[in-house]
Amino acid sequence: MFLGKVIGTVWATKKSDTCANLRFLVVHPLNLKKAPSTDVVICADTLGAGPGETVICAYGHAARKAIHPDAPAELSIEAAVIGIVDRVDIDEDASDGKIT
Amino acid sequence: MFLGKVIGTVWATKKSDTCANLRFLVVHPLNLKKAPSTDVVICADTLGAGPGETVICAYGHAARKAIHPDAPAELSIEAAVIGIVDRVDIDEDASDGKIT
Amino acid sequence: MFLGKVIGTVWATKKSDTCANLRFLVVHPLNLKKAPSTDVVICADTLGAGPGETVICAYGHAARKAIHPDAPAELSIEAAVIGIVDRVDIDEDASDGKIT
Amino acid sequence: MFLGKVIGTVWATKKSDTCANLRFLVVHPLNLKKAPSTDVVICADTLGAGPGETVICAYGHAARKAIHPDAPAELSIEAAVIGIVDRVDIDEDASDGKIT
Amino acid sequence: MFLGKVIGTVWATKKSDTCANLRFLVVHPLNLKKAPSTDVVICADTLGAGPGETVICAYGHAARKAIHPDAPAELSIEAAVIGIVDRVDIDEDASDGKIT
Repeated sequence: MFLGKVIGTVWATKKSDTCANLRFLVVHPLNLKKAPSTDVVICADTLGAGPGETVICAYGHAARKAIHPDAPAELSIEAAVIGIVDRVDIDEDASDGKIT
Repeated sequence: MFLGKVIGTVWATKKSDTCANLRFLVVHPLNLKKAPSTDVVICADTLGAGPGETVICAYGHAARKAIHPDAPAELSIEAAVIGIVDRVDIDEDASDGKIT
Repeated sequence: MFLGKVIGTVWATKKSDTCANLRFLVVHPLNLKKAPSTDVVICADTLGAGPGETVICAYGHAARKAIHPDAPAELSIEAAVIGIVDRVDIDEDASDGKIT
Repeated sequence: MFLGKVIGTVWATKKSDTCANLRFLVVHPLNLKKAPSTDVVICADTLGAGPGETVICAYGHAARKAIHPDAPAELSIEAAVIGIVDRVDIDEDASDGKIT
Repeated sequence: MFLGKVIGTVWATKKSDTCANLRFLVVHPLNLKKAPSTDVVICADTLGAGPGETVICAYGHAARKAIHPDAPAELSIEAAVIGIVDRVDIDEDASDGKIT
């Protein structure tokens, strides 16, 4: 899964029936960089995440299971918000990034 | 899922039977950069997206479900247009890209 | 899916039984760059694609379905040629690469 | 799978029911670089990995199977710690990185 | 699938039961670059690949199928060696890397 910040919403009237009525957010993945990522991911959301909130997002089956727990395979989405983040505790010094 | 712009079409007469009769679009993924991405993704489409239109695309099961809802596992595709975008509202300032 | 050009073949006598007798091609993914990609993808092929031909390739279930439509889950491969390309029509000017 | 180092924890009260009660770690992927990666991956963990420990992580079905072996498809997660590393033996000189 | 060179081994005593008793190799992906990739992939192996050998590796279901053909879904791994390479024939001049 990845951490991201909600920065927008996508509207699409013409959509596959298998993802109709879903809310699609524009999520900006977060990293340890000084320079922000330039990519965004479109994520379905049923938790009500709003602009500026930090979210945990998942891909594939996990995304469908979060959005429609009873029949995940019925959905044609592959990314979703699975949690709204209260707090992240990190200690960047715990890793130097290199395999010893 | 990702946002992309339709920039072309691919023709292939010799194809797996499991993806015959499908329309394959060349989709250019969109980002927040000044410099455009140099990658493209080939996406199946049944919504009728045309050149210059912005689309939402999905990978894997989601792509097959969008194209053939009744029997997704019968298809040998793994990317598809799942929606044609009317409008994207983003506020880039809502994220500085860094995990706090 | 992605577009690639066939640039070679891989021979492996010692292989998982679940992918024996398959032909493995070295495929060079194509992009819009002036500088070519340095990555390659190994793809199973049953369409008879040859060196220098442009192909459409797919990952995961789609790849297995293209190679063995009757029992895709029996295969231990995750990339395959699903079509041999006759023509690609693109208009790079149709996209500036940026989310509006 | 990838190797990573645990550098933190994520707290999210508002979460999909299908991943409630799980512990989410911030994992920093390791590489052969001098410059560390700036990406992180959020991984579920039931092995009790702590800050500064090196872990093996897996995506997708593998992640769900590690966390909930009896009913992996019930989970809406797609990355997890599958092992805590005792030792890595590598000989970087065994590869020059180039296809011959 | 990708080509890689075996450069090491990972030992992990504390592991998910669903991947116990498996051998985990450190595999260095190969490319067409002069500069080698700095990433590595951890792959399960039952073919007996050793340091310095070139291997074909696969992700996801394909990896599990190669390692445990009778019950792939029981494993919590998502990358594996599926073949040991005897020879790679490539003609880099067959591709200029650009979509025509």
